[in-house]
Amino acid sequence: MAEGAELLRSALRAETPIESVYLAPEGADDPLTQQTCAQAVAGGARLFPLAPGVLERVADTVTPQPVLTVLPMLDDPSPLTPQPETGSLIVVMVDVRDPGNAGTVLRTADASGVKTVVFSGDSVDPYNPKAVRASAGSLFHVPFAVHEDALALATSLRGAGYRTLATVVREGEDYAELDWSIPTALFLGNESAGLPDDVRAAIGSSLCVPMEGRAESLNVGVACAVVCFEALRQRRARMAP
Amino acid sequence: MAEGAELLRSALRAETPIESVYLAPEGADDPLTQQTCAQAVAGGARLFPLAPGVLERVADTVTPQPVLTVLPMLDDPSPLTPQPETGSLIVVMVDVRDPGNAGTVLRTADASGVKTVVFSGDSVDPYNPKAVRASAGSLFHVPFAVHEDALALATSLRGAGYRTLATVVREGEDYAELDWSIPTALFLGNESAGLPDDVRAAIGSSLCVPMEGRAESLNVGVACAVVCFEALRQRRARMAP
Repeated sequence: MAEGAELLRSALRAETPIESVYLAPEGADDPLTQQTCAQAVAGGARLFPLAPGVLERVADTVTPQPVLTVLPMLDDPSPLTPQPETGSLIVVMVDVRDPGNAGTVLRTADASGVKTVVFSGDSVDPYNPKAVRASAGSLFHVPFAVHEDALALATSLRGAGYRTLATVVREGEDYAELDWSIPTALFLGNESAGLPDDVRAAIGSSLCVPMEGRAESLNVGVACAVVCFEALRQRRARMAP
Repeated sequence: MAEGAELLRSALRAETPIESVYLAPEGADDPLTQQTCAQAVAGGARLFPLAPGVLERVADTVTPQPVLTVLPMLDDPSPLTPQPETGSLIVVMVDVRDPGNAGTVLRTADASGVKTVVFSGDSVDPYNPKAVRASAGSLFHVPFAVHEDALALATSLRGAGYRTLATVVREGEDYAELDWSIPTALFLGNESAGLPDDVRAAIGSSLCVPMEGRAESLNVGVACAVVCFEALRQRRARMAP
């Protein structure tokens, strides 16, 4: 379920099949929204105009946007351990509970060229409406998978030839001094507790983002962004003429 | 108003004066929370034990943490245009509406050694409870100021010797190719609309974070993090022996 005309447009651009669109009266009055809905219908979606006040009763937000799109669950198109290539990066969330954080990780992974995002351990459902919203359409772009057993995943990624790195708050290797041409699986832990001890032990190496100031840690989406964009920066520098 | 024992501990560590602490029964049963409250009382705070169910009625979240701290508004300790020094970085939010984003910007600014954060234009109130929560205590650490007139601020920062940079989605200078030893004021715009045209014109130069994949933009907190940590990375490299 995706709220808002903007997410519907992202789904259309990504050529994601659309089951149905629910349109509140405020949306029916907007030419751009009308056009977006017409495009969805042309692609096979069913359109249901809603009476005033109905959407407010079913939507996840207090003042919902006037378009609600229902999409099928995405088939998992990605093998959990794609062939490692130079610069390949996989992000594994372990017990990331906040849907806003998980959606932001997807959006950031998309923008920084990450190959696959894995929702592992007790992480939030990727289809949580808040996660879908925070992904800003990247749910339709980045291959993602759900795989509960983070321990087994760490082992199989290492077996497949990936360097595995646990993201920790301190006493890890400096992320900016690592060579990101090495195919890597980056493990991110829970917002409060970090990574479980057994998973961290199985991963072996850890990385941290050295900080100044008095903040005790970074938001998990921010840590992911800082590391993934450093990897992209190095990749761009390698590609530069 | 700060929710949760963790924020109370941050305030105590930052030696912020505390007016009062409201403690729900669940908190009174927890030894660490008890100890934190005792420390607040020793520092002059008034402690109010609450009957079951009372906190749920006044707190901002559905399942509030059992401690609610009331703090005085922080005096604005920072001049809006501190003396520019090598590597100084100021972050100016213009019309940033989402309290979670604003709090994340504060937390990231703290962790990356930013000098001052300015809430400008129609940005959310820094004391919004969700912003306080998302700042994870950094509200008590980073000097911040509220200054509505972003246009005048851009002009006065340039007059004071800062390079001003507008953060844009594309067609700006590559953030990774800029020299961050130059004292800089980084302007971040609204989540949907970006920076107002007149502010962008007054700022002059713009920067962007080059992206891969199909994401159309970055979350504002993520963009801030990528840029501020690149500035810190360069600063650390300069300091290295």
